[in-house]
Amino acid sequence: MAEPKSVTAAVLVIGDEILSGRTKDRNIGHLAERLTGIGIDLKEVRVVSDDEAAIVEAVNALRARYTYVFTTGGIGPTHDDITADSIAKAFGVAIGIDPRAKALMMERFAEADLNEARLRMARIPAGANLITNRISKAPGFWIGNVIVMAGVPSIMQAMLEEVIPKLETGLPMLSETVRADLREGDIGTELAAVAKAHPEVTIGSYPFLDELGLPNTNLVVRARDAEKLTAARAAVETMLAAVRARLGR
Amino acid sequence: MAEPKSVTAAVLVIGDEILSGRTKDRNIGHLAERLTGIGIDLKEVRVVSDDEAAIVEAVNALRARYTYVFTTGGIGPTHDDITADSIAKAFGVAIGIDPRAKALMMERFAEADLNEARLRMARIPAGANLITNRISKAPGFWIGNVIVMAGVPSIMQAMLEEVIPKLETGLPMLSETVRADLREGDIGTELAAVAKAHPEVTIGSYPFLDELGLPNTNLVVRARDAEKLTAARAAVETMLAAVRARLGR
Repeated sequence: MAEPKSVTAAVLVIGDEILSGRTKDRNIGHLAERLTGIGIDLKEVRVVSDDEAAIVEAVNALRARYTYVFTTGGIGPTHDDITADSIAKAFGVAIGIDPRAKALMMERFAEADLNEARLRMARIPAGANLITNRISKAPGFWIGNVIVMAGVPSIMQAMLEEVIPKLETGLPMLSETVRADLREGDIGTELAAVAKAHPEVTIGSYPFLDELGLPNTNLVVRARDAEKLTAARAAVETMLAAVRARLGR
Repeated sequence: MAEPKSVTAAVLVIGDEILSGRTKDRNIGHLAERLTGIGIDLKEVRVVSDDEAAIVEAVNALRARYTYVFTTGGIGPTHDDITADSIAKAFGVAIGIDPRAKALMMERFAEADLNEARLRMARIPAGANLITNRISKAPGFWIGNVIVMAGVPSIMQAMLEEVIPKLETGLPMLSETVRADLREGDIGTELAAVAKAHPEVTIGSYPFLDELGLPNTNLVVRARDAEKLTAARAAVETMLAAVRARLGR
């Protein structure tokens, strides 16, 4: 049987405000959930500052390695918004005011209000496709396998929805959660044996405190194949019942 | 005048659950805020999956580049907890059950409960120092410039507080926020001129929607030197007043 097609992605968050702790990132979690849901495996996330060398290095490392790279942040109208220029540099292409981007912005701004600062948002690397922004008009863009989006969560999410229908996607990952009613340390050895017996299924173990404040564990079984998922889940449940019986729980 | 000592850091978040979107990371924001507050510049964050090669590569890239690397996640008792082994591999050192770590765990667990799974949490790379864990006893560790902590936020935070008094710290970054009552695009050009005139001060521009739902901007002025900060803040306020007067706001 052919290996199912694997589509991978990285996220690159750009912004001093995340690294200083001033702003708490809300884009990583959204992208992780949305991409996983359409069968794109998010493999890596990086956060870098508003620093050209750091952005160029990260973009070039990630685009060589994954199907897609999604960036967030740094495409606004102020001096600290250097993402578009950095992406142009990473690709070795020119950048200037893009007439298509300017036209989109004129849907919102009168010509008189399209000052030098706002026109920064129409600077697009040569060869890029635009990503429309139904919220505030200034577009994102897509060049090679790199998708450049705003940092404001509502705008990022709107841009992502524009892009998703055009992405190559994979077989969605199926996932089921089994509540263990045991502590992680009670089941670690037995769980490792189940995981080893089901190599095409990923089993994650996540401790949490339950309603009574007692340590408990969620086991998350993940696979692209529904039958393999069902078999692994059954093995997990059998194992849990055996451990509970042994410990008298 | 000597350049103030610069202490830098990276954070490495380890865990499939973050990349799948199942768990929303809460450690990056906390670390960013806490490290910035003690004058350690967080320069980069990476999130990688529970994959040995990915962890080894990231640890080795980051520890060569920054004063400290803080890792979170992957030090529990189950098969998907592979951080300690991966760190040992990154450093090329042996790993085994550490008697000091086992002793700490015996403060919580009876010998009979210290099964094979729980003893995984006492596996510590050779040459590492332990980081005590006042919440659940299983320790973190510190090897070279890499500080390895749990992923559960309350435990990570407790471990961080254990470590902080031992860290080399820098001059704290001072920060002031000025509310512009203007849109980013109204002030971008003028703000760039202020930023250029104050090269030792970082000025970030962050759009937000105000109480009336109108676009507004916070300008964050950051410097280690209080006098330079005050001068830059004054220049920002003068610039804002001029733009407001010109636009009749």
